[in-house]
Amino acid sequence: MTIIKAEIITIGDEILYGQITDTNSQWISFELDKIGVKTIRKTSVGDDKYEILKVVNEAERRADIVLITGGLGPTNDDITKKTLVEYFDCEMKLHDEALKDVTELFHRRGRVLTETNKGQAFLPTACKYIKNPVGTAPCMWFDKNNKVVVSMPGVPYEMKEIMTGSILPLLVKQFNTTSIVHFIVRTIGIGESNLADLIKDWEINLPKEIKLAYLPSVGEVKLRLTGVDDSIEKITQKVDFEIEKLRPLIAEYIYAYQDETLEVAIGNLLKLKNKKIAVAESCTGGYLSHLFTSVSGSSVYYKGGVVAYDNEVKVKVLGVDVDSLNNEGAVSEYTIKAMAEGVRKVLKTDIGVATSGIAGPEGGTEDKPVGTVWIAYSDSEKTVVKKLQLGIKRDVNIRLASLAVLNLIRQSIEK
Amino acid sequence: MTIIKAEIITIGDEILYGQITDTNSQWISFELDKIGVKTIRKTSVGDDKYEILKVVNEAERRADIVLITGGLGPTNDDITKKTLVEYFDCEMKLHDEALKDVTELFHRRGRVLTETNKGQAFLPTACKYIKNPVGTAPCMWFDKNNKVVVSMPGVPYEMKEIMTGSILPLLVKQFNTTSIVHFIVRTIGIGESNLADLIKDWEINLPKEIKLAYLPSVGEVKLRLTGVDDSIEKITQKVDFEIEKLRPLIAEYIYAYQDETLEVAIGNLLKLKNKKIAVAESCTGGYLSHLFTSVSGSSVYYKGGVVAYDNEVKVKVLGVDVDSLNNEGAVSEYTIKAMAEGVRKVLKTDIGVATSGIAGPEGGTEDKPVGTVWIAYSDSEKTVVKKLQLGIKRDVNIRLASLAVLNLIRQSIEK
Repeated sequence: MTIIKAEIITIGDEILYGQITDTNSQWISFELDKIGVKTIRKTSVGDDKYEILKVVNEAERRADIVLITGGLGPTNDDITKKTLVEYFDCEMKLHDEALKDVTELFHRRGRVLTETNKGQAFLPTACKYIKNPVGTAPCMWFDKNNKVVVSMPGVPYEMKEIMTGSILPLLVKQFNTTSIVHFIVRTIGIGESNLADLIKDWEINLPKEIKLAYLPSVGEVKLRLTGVDDSIEKITQKVDFEIEKLRPLIAEYIYAYQDETLEVAIGNLLKLKNKKIAVAESCTGGYLSHLFTSVSGSSVYYKGGVVAYDNEVKVKVLGVDVDSLNNEGAVSEYTIKAMAEGVRKVLKTDIGVATSGIAGPEGGTEDKPVGTVWIAYSDSEKTVVKKLQLGIKRDVNIRLASLAVLNLIRQSIEK
Repeated sequence: MTIIKAEIITIGDEILYGQITDTNSQWISFELDKIGVKTIRKTSVGDDKYEILKVVNEAERRADIVLITGGLGPTNDDITKKTLVEYFDCEMKLHDEALKDVTELFHRRGRVLTETNKGQAFLPTACKYIKNPVGTAPCMWFDKNNKVVVSMPGVPYEMKEIMTGSILPLLVKQFNTTSIVHFIVRTIGIGESNLADLIKDWEINLPKEIKLAYLPSVGEVKLRLTGVDDSIEKITQKVDFEIEKLRPLIAEYIYAYQDETLEVAIGNLLKLKNKKIAVAESCTGGYLSHLFTSVSGSSVYYKGGVVAYDNEVKVKVLGVDVDSLNNEGAVSEYTIKAMAEGVRKVLKTDIGVATSGIAGPEGGTEDKPVGTVWIAYSDSEKTVVKKLQLGIKRDVNIRLASLAVLNLIRQSIEK
């Protein structure tokens, strides 16, 4: 079994100055891992010809695949393309297909192609042109002594489109990667170490060809099983067998498998049950509605929402009783119930959900410190409320509270 | 003028597999930049002795300062310390002060020191011990031929405490750092290449001690000027002088300077003008409200919002005329006007803004393809509408449309 090795190089002064976080190399190595390619090193250098030449050369000697992002913009500080012309000892030429594609892209956006943008269709003669379906900077693929060097734009969503649509399939074809199977079990409502305790015995007894990884992120923990064997059928069977043993141990925390996010899972659940939902938000300020509507086709089950930031909106639009609101406060069991029930009635839906709390970092009191959040679920049969005590970071609290509501829907709708 | 160069090495299999994003190197380089130290390269390698030895050696030859994070945990897969003993050709010895500190830390947390944890007080004899005030993994400082190698724990908040409390002050003392000045000009509503065309002459005539970088991201382009000179006063003056020349060339696109994001800039503008705003969203589905409310203190100017996803919500809550809506469609000049004006009235604010469009990837027609978005701004004096033609990616369209509304506020409120 040969291990295919890759190195990732991210180029840009803005990375070296720390003005942006390089998320490209994380994403790329995660995807490479899925197709059985091992990342052995990641390097970031600035927009500096000699540094780029050196680091590409070093990487190419160590690895089979070198993936480069960044430095492909149309402006003068972007020098990756010129540098690759020098590295592969070739010329820069206008590439007809690239010109056609970039012209079309401008046309589609209703803009006129400038000379600067036309420059993006000039490519090193040594490269194979790979289309960028969502941007003007083209991708370049170089073959050299059974090794591959690929240069991609640094804008993450452009890079991801190119990787998913072209580079990953091409790499799978060109390199004989081992049979690797990944299976992801997605959990919510339990921390990493408690999860580890629950599945300890199962984990210890995993066969050596199956590896387990804990992938925690804000509000959830994913378990990834990776099986490596010489036949895809054999290893798939073994992984399936282990998943069947795992499932009953943590059933109540599992919300989905593989790539299905929580917002997609809840959307599917609402579709399945043929229910329409409405959202009333205070502390999450629109983020919960955004999670719902980030899913294409969500208009089937998501009818609308009210961001009742000001108490007047809670009263006037959602029908929360003004005296009770003043007595109990906006962050209270009374108000959260009234919000969830109110939005369900006003928007005429089967289900209403709501959030109200102190997202921070300001606004906490002794009674209701930053991170105090009430959430509620309401349908024609019942209203369920829950109090959360979150941390002090505003963005984290907003996301955690929103995920908690999605999880509350899962728990409440099924019963 | 000597430039002090640094390299950052982050160690850990979890980084190479893409299971976590390395945020340490971004933070460190940002802090180094502030004290005038230039990061020339960042490298990530796995928990692998030979890789670590190689990369530390390479970095030490190129840079004056090598900062390492990761691989200092108490378990067997953490090998950075052992590897540094080998690299500096010294021994591992129990360090009295380190033992005292780690014992105290355990005591403070009400736990008993295990043998494994006692192991953390063993240090390479070649290093200077640097206390970790918030964790058990100590920091190690090595001096060698006027160069410095520092090894820190990988847990971000421990690393940050050590850097801020010890390493950065020590580096400032040991190296005579140059004066570096950064200035960022933030623009919206113009693409990178058009911006480049507008400022071409100015860019060509920049003095050699000032470098320009274009930092594009979804919906906006930042321009960063970096000046390097031997006196902070001199270079600040030169950068200010260039900014003054740049400003009139692109005045209409500049929304802020330095770290101020668009949502913060618009929030400050609303505060300054003492205006309250309400948001009606269709295609942006809550994201625009989320942008407003992601800013702490936004309740001063953001009153609330309605996510009118379903047409019934547009009619019932926002008061859009049902016949006109049916005739003109939800994505139309009529509807967007009625939404912005409606939310302003219903929520009783000075300003109302709205979005309605086809976010995609489904739902487009020949007349109104995916990416067709109407936005509007309404106050007591006027209603301004604008039609956008965006791309085909749902998440990008949602963000672009939301940023376009923020920009429309800037353009409309000032006049």
